[in-house]
Amino acid sequence: MNDSRDLRLADVSEEEVLEHIFPLLRADHGPSAATGVLVGPGDDTAWLAAPDGRFLATTDAVVLGHDWLDAWSTGADVGHKAVMQNCADIAAMGGVTTGLLVTLAAHAGTSMAWVTDLARGIGEAAREARTSVVGGDLSGADDGTVMVSITAFGTTEGRDPVLRSGARPGDVVAVAGGLGRSGAGWALLRTGRGEIAPDLVAIHRRPAPPLSEGPGAARAGAHAMIDLSDGLVRDAGRVARASGVVIDLDPAALAPHVDALTSAVGAEEALTCVLTGGEEHSLLATFAEAPDGWHVLGTVGPVDELGAGVRVGGEPRRGGGWDHFDTSR
Amino acid sequence: MNDSRDLRLADVSEEEVLEHIFPLLRADHGPSAATGVLVGPGDDTAWLAAPDGRFLATTDAVVLGHDWLDAWSTGADVGHKAVMQNCADIAAMGGVTTGLLVTLAAHAGTSMAWVTDLARGIGEAAREARTSVVGGDLSGADDGTVMVSITAFGTTEGRDPVLRSGARPGDVVAVAGGLGRSGAGWALLRTGRGEIAPDLVAIHRRPAPPLSEGPGAARAGAHAMIDLSDGLVRDAGRVARASGVVIDLDPAALAPHVDALTSAVGAEEALTCVLTGGEEHSLLATFAEAPDGWHVLGTVGPVDELGAGVRVGGEPRRGGGWDHFDTSR
Repeated sequence: MNDSRDLRLADVSEEEVLEHIFPLLRADHGPSAATGVLVGPGDDTAWLAAPDGRFLATTDAVVLGHDWLDAWSTGADVGHKAVMQNCADIAAMGGVTTGLLVTLAAHAGTSMAWVTDLARGIGEAAREARTSVVGGDLSGADDGTVMVSITAFGTTEGRDPVLRSGARPGDVVAVAGGLGRSGAGWALLRTGRGEIAPDLVAIHRRPAPPLSEGPGAARAGAHAMIDLSDGLVRDAGRVARASGVVIDLDPAALAPHVDALTSAVGAEEALTCVLTGGEEHSLLATFAEAPDGWHVLGTVGPVDELGAGVRVGGEPRRGGGWDHFDTSR
Repeated sequence: MNDSRDLRLADVSEEEVLEHIFPLLRADHGPSAATGVLVGPGDDTAWLAAPDGRFLATTDAVVLGHDWLDAWSTGADVGHKAVMQNCADIAAMGGVTTGLLVTLAAHAGTSMAWVTDLARGIGEAAREARTSVVGGDLSGADDGTVMVSITAFGTTEGRDPVLRSGARPGDVVAVAGGLGRSGAGWALLRTGRGEIAPDLVAIHRRPAPPLSEGPGAARAGAHAMIDLSDGLVRDAGRVARASGVVIDLDPAALAPHVDALTSAVGAEEALTCVLTGGEEHSLLATFAEAPDGWHVLGTVGPVDELGAGVRVGGEPRRGGGWDHFDTSR
């Protein structure tokens, strides 16, 4: 298989596909205690080190036409984002990613050039996260269907994981990373205005979660943490309900995030993006006192007569964000 | 959501889907050292015990119209089989499954009754394998598309895993479980003759891998092992090439397996099923001496002038079995 450009999956055997993409997935860093891949691809399963006798595991899938459009994202973008959203989940537990499994379900007409590009993006993201692909699966799918499912493993390096349920009245709630940028980039793409703010579009295509801030927050004594995948209000609400608290976001603290998007999408859309924009993959955590690198957004208080949930400047705020089966979009 | 019968995924929120299916996935056995789920569904990731500081991980996906047809398999069959094929991979390393992640990517019109049935089958299989679902993901998909991707974790209980690469000249090659039964069941379904042998059709719908024989083989000193997912010749060929040996299957040893299928599918198809039938999920291993419960099928010899590979009665034998992107079927 010298030139993959004009080939489709149907033209090559599974073994040839794997031989072609494995070099693109390879880690370029040496193994360490935390990334000990004892048996990698090529056997019935992978075998990984879990130095402290426990491991984190999470999975997240993306589907063509639902989670990405080929007109907006390259194969490499799709692969990079799929890896990063899983690594962000590991980071949100205070963990470091130690390995990835990749499943591609694709129709036989899928071009090998796209598959190669996907593998390139997965490999790039894996190296950025200092981890590697340890196995996976290839499956056929109906015409037009392409799905990438990633499973990530991680270690908390001997610590207890930071859960959603640990927020306490008196905590501050803080974010590491931006807010609403991916949502704003998506809004621009949807309305054909991507050239207005290529930086926001780039973040929509390839979110850059602050992975090292996850274990950093754990070391700094974070009480609760979550990855912002479905929007600030929705994800903060998950922490509030799991912890049985009220999270009150301060409009003044949100304002710089809104202002940063206003020139691109206007003030109203900017606020919507900050509150409900998905796929940002920043980290939201609560602390007795926020460490360096975290931006305080508000406070945690006891449950009131309205129950656990999110307020913005004291006002109840529900929902927004992403539901995969909502056909009203 | 009182009655899921007439609902579709589009009619309910993701949270409602999860609330509905979680009880069906629950384990009914207490936790043990090997199945220690420290943090289960509901946080950004799961957190599992790996008592010996290492863990096995594998993933396998099934797609409607490619890996199953709704006319032939219920949702529960699909879920049961998806779990079992992953647990068979763990067993083939000599391991015991300790946890499962489940991803469902499905179109908004998918009926909640089917999703409920799927979850029921996943839960049944997980309990049979003495493990449990520790997390997962729900994604939308195009009209008509349904995909179930499972990731399984396991422990080798302190042993080294049994790899494909350990077969040695002088070994015997042996199978735990049947041969060709799933393939014969599939052949009957394809030709509308399922009623001839409901037992074979049942094995196609719900393979019954001999999970405990995997760790049993490891304890008995197996040199190499593989799960028979893509057919005896193809999977034995993987062991032969990984080990740099020749595996010679004895026609006399295969005969009882062929005979068992002949009344259902005829002698010629029976032989084809035994040699190339997929999805059997029996275990094939090589030993200095086969332990009880394993049926010797042949011998392992040094590489000859034809290279590493499989022979049947001394004759070279290639291929057959399943390729996901082969459009010539």
